[in-house]
Amino acid sequence: MARFSTAEATVVLRENGKTREKTLTMGTLNPQVKAVEYAVRGPIVTKAGDIERGLQQGQKHPFTEVIKANIGDSHAMGQKPITFLRQVVALCSFPELLDSSSFPEDAKQRARRILQGCGGQSLGSYSASQGVDCIRQDVAVYIEQRDKGVPADWDNIYLTTGASDGIVSILKMLVSGQGRSRSGVMIPIPQYPLYSAAISEMEAVQINYYLDEDNCWALDINELHRAYQAAKEHCHPRVICIINPGNPTGQVQSKKCIEEVLHFAYEENLFVMSDEVYQDNVYSPDCQFHSFKKVLYEMGPEYFNTVELASFHSTSKGYSGECGFRGGYMEVLNLDLEVKAQLVKLLSIRLCPPVSGQAAMDVIVNPPLPHEPSYLQFHKEKSAVLGALAEKAQMTEQILNTVPGIKCNPVQGAMYAFPRIFIPPRAVEAAMSLGMSPDMMYCLRLLEETGICLVPGSGFGQREGTYHFRMTILPTTEKLKVLLEKLRDFHIKFLKEYAPLEEPKRSEDDTQEALKQFR
Amino acid sequence: MARFSTAEATVVLRENGKTREKTLTMGTLNPQVKAVEYAVRGPIVTKAGDIERGLQQGQKHPFTEVIKANIGDSHAMGQKPITFLRQVVALCSFPELLDSSSFPEDAKQRARRILQGCGGQSLGSYSASQGVDCIRQDVAVYIEQRDKGVPADWDNIYLTTGASDGIVSILKMLVSGQGRSRSGVMIPIPQYPLYSAAISEMEAVQINYYLDEDNCWALDINELHRAYQAAKEHCHPRVICIINPGNPTGQVQSKKCIEEVLHFAYEENLFVMSDEVYQDNVYSPDCQFHSFKKVLYEMGPEYFNTVELASFHSTSKGYSGECGFRGGYMEVLNLDLEVKAQLVKLLSIRLCPPVSGQAAMDVIVNPPLPHEPSYLQFHKEKSAVLGALAEKAQMTEQILNTVPGIKCNPVQGAMYAFPRIFIPPRAVEAAMSLGMSPDMMYCLRLLEETGICLVPGSGFGQREGTYHFRMTILPTTEKLKVLLEKLRDFHIKFLKEYAPLEEPKRSEDDTQEALKQFR
Repeated sequence: MARFSTAEATVVLRENGKTREKTLTMGTLNPQVKAVEYAVRGPIVTKAGDIERGLQQGQKHPFTEVIKANIGDSHAMGQKPITFLRQVVALCSFPELLDSSSFPEDAKQRARRILQGCGGQSLGSYSASQGVDCIRQDVAVYIEQRDKGVPADWDNIYLTTGASDGIVSILKMLVSGQGRSRSGVMIPIPQYPLYSAAISEMEAVQINYYLDEDNCWALDINELHRAYQAAKEHCHPRVICIINPGNPTGQVQSKKCIEEVLHFAYEENLFVMSDEVYQDNVYSPDCQFHSFKKVLYEMGPEYFNTVELASFHSTSKGYSGECGFRGGYMEVLNLDLEVKAQLVKLLSIRLCPPVSGQAAMDVIVNPPLPHEPSYLQFHKEKSAVLGALAEKAQMTEQILNTVPGIKCNPVQGAMYAFPRIFIPPRAVEAAMSLGMSPDMMYCLRLLEETGICLVPGSGFGQREGTYHFRMTILPTTEKLKVLLEKLRDFHIKFLKEYAPLEEPKRSEDDTQEALKQFR
Repeated sequence: MARFSTAEATVVLRENGKTREKTLTMGTLNPQVKAVEYAVRGPIVTKAGDIERGLQQGQKHPFTEVIKANIGDSHAMGQKPITFLRQVVALCSFPELLDSSSFPEDAKQRARRILQGCGGQSLGSYSASQGVDCIRQDVAVYIEQRDKGVPADWDNIYLTTGASDGIVSILKMLVSGQGRSRSGVMIPIPQYPLYSAAISEMEAVQINYYLDEDNCWALDINELHRAYQAAKEHCHPRVICIINPGNPTGQVQSKKCIEEVLHFAYEENLFVMSDEVYQDNVYSPDCQFHSFKKVLYEMGPEYFNTVELASFHSTSKGYSGECGFRGGYMEVLNLDLEVKAQLVKLLSIRLCPPVSGQAAMDVIVNPPLPHEPSYLQFHKEKSAVLGALAEKAQMTEQILNTVPGIKCNPVQGAMYAFPRIFIPPRAVEAAMSLGMSPDMMYCLRLLEETGICLVPGSGFGQREGTYHFRMTILPTTEKLKVLLEKLRDFHIKFLKEYAPLEEPKRSEDDTQEALKQFR
């Protein structure tokens, strides 16, 4: 039996002389799958994994550890779980612990309540496709409190497998038509690449609206109009997606801006998807999180009773950072009743979201109350996480802005900085000759020379001719300082290599000066 | 503001007199979503939920409880979790418990090992897209042992969100082409409706091959050839799906039959998907589970090194019944290397399967060893579950076969009976006049009159003119007896109503006689 490969297929010569081709090859693979890109776990991250394994096996590199700042994975970067949340999950997982005196009474009460909502009082039974009833009720109460009394109906709440699952399900409902009537989906650029990946997989039409980098990545309503009008020529724009606070851009939208977006969606008959997974991650004292739902409510019943809005939240971000539990919820407003039945049907095929993730979500929307035994510790832990993130957000912005050729907008919220980097023309040429985007080459060299793992801006989208990277602010303060100093040194070396005649506008002293305030 | 509905859209009259249509209506919904059907959670189940709520609120029905035998949800039906599995999950969730003396040492060791494989040693960090390395290694060791030494490479193991997630991911890769070159997917009829739903959602072509009801639902190779040849005229058959042990049909495939299927797949260049989630659920002493992989191996290297095979397993079934954890794995053989990278990319968009589900999967593939402290209890619990299922499988078959107009094949494995029911022509006419399939009318009336919730055979597919229902064997023995007696009475009443002149071939005495041996 001999094997050989062609572009279309791997071919195997059978003993009887006939050939047998592989069924699934790059030539026969679903082209929509092939078209999908997902930078957050792309080639740089694969390479970082390879280097890490090499280091463990004693390979030599100019550094001793890989620092991963590519993904919003808090626990992997050392953040400790919220005790109360984990107590509730452990109690639900092994209810014999309900008799143990080493668990606080409020944690036991939550666990009992959740288990009562589960078939056979077990985390191991399927929940309803929409999720456990009492958890959905808790979500509705949370939203009402967050939005200062705007009514929330738990019938509109769907628990999900992380936010991604909800986003993909809603998009799937909205994709239809052929050719010029194909559904168009407006997404911010830069965006979180789940959106572009899902749009590409479903063969919907991606409509880019560019965030205004010169204005702290604000959303400009004129840009929305421009993008919409241009797209109308070749597709049917039906959805607008907003990420607030922004990923990868870290901005927090003003109430006025949200009003403008909602008015626009109202006028143009767009379905609004607001990705609000960073609603607890607001650091800048000048900023405040406004939910799209609350703003819609305040615009009056003509808006609140008509605009179709799905908003998303998750256990993965915020102060808990429980990515691995894959918990999340979505609230869907003004959905046509028949369509709602279709959504439930679609969700039911996957049976249910993981029930332990649902339990984790419950704790986040229903934390201990002031009179309960776990209240103090819960709030101490929550404040410590959010306080540290706020400090690191500020530090990242300030340090990056002392580096010549790097310009970073304030990290008002979320977990990322998305600085613009100046890449000299000769470096751009060098990258092109390698068939690589310039920021990819930059990040690859950064990884190889310093062990720092970031994601190139091209994975999120950026204006033609501009270059960025996304880095998380999740490493511990000490590690983040090391990262920022290494990054600075690398960047200056990179500039010297490709633009030796340019005079840097800032000196190393500036960086050291800025770092001092965080020591 | 006034609202009115049309077939195409809900229209809202704005204050300015212009109309605003809903964006997402039955008219604009993704037609692929609309086409999807999923009977296991279909209208009967919704109705059962309504009746249950009604009962709680004091509504009168001719019964006092709804007995749900529609879904393979063991814990909801009262099965208790396996202690060791839950101990490990609780320890992973709340590692402070690792210091507690109330947990056995082997459970602690498993938990430590799993946590060491997690970023930041936390269940709350994302795992790699393929799953936690050490769990994938444990899966490979399990498969090697199960298959008596057939080599398993953990690089081919992918942890999944239940088996459904893996099945959908592999199918997604395989769908391509247009018109006559569109991918065709061969599925058994009757089938588990995840398959038809996924095929319909992806606009692939469903190719039915009928299982042989007269021969204990065996897979007949001639029927495969027939279905394949007929389908070749209008699509490109690329995949064959097998469910073994069968869902909803409960048969266990013989080794010879598996060889024939694999030979057929080899000859016709088909990708093989073998759904083996019931591999631990074999009850008939004459039957044995053979994995498709082991049989492929024994057919020799020309087969083992070429046929592309994905097999699926899950935490949801077997003896653990941990549906809510959404754990699972797939093993994929002979996948083209570039395609493998594409699969990992596709999986990475959803980031990772729930890590607590991965931990649950680990316990199932790596149970306590004979010298370990939890061994005895684990095996006692496991045998109790499987022993009770075997008894209930036999009882269900025997009792159903005493009812005139019901014929049930042996429940050799899995968790379901799929008996054929005789529906008199006048009942068929009555159903048709209601725009309902006859078995749907049957199940609906059964529910309304007795509180028993089953799924009509039409939700799984059946030969034209034959009628069935699927019922699980999961209720407790006592409840199952009640169910079977009620079902018998209902069926006889139903026959009397629609075919009063037919003489029943069996009497009630037969049922009582058969029931006695299970008392």
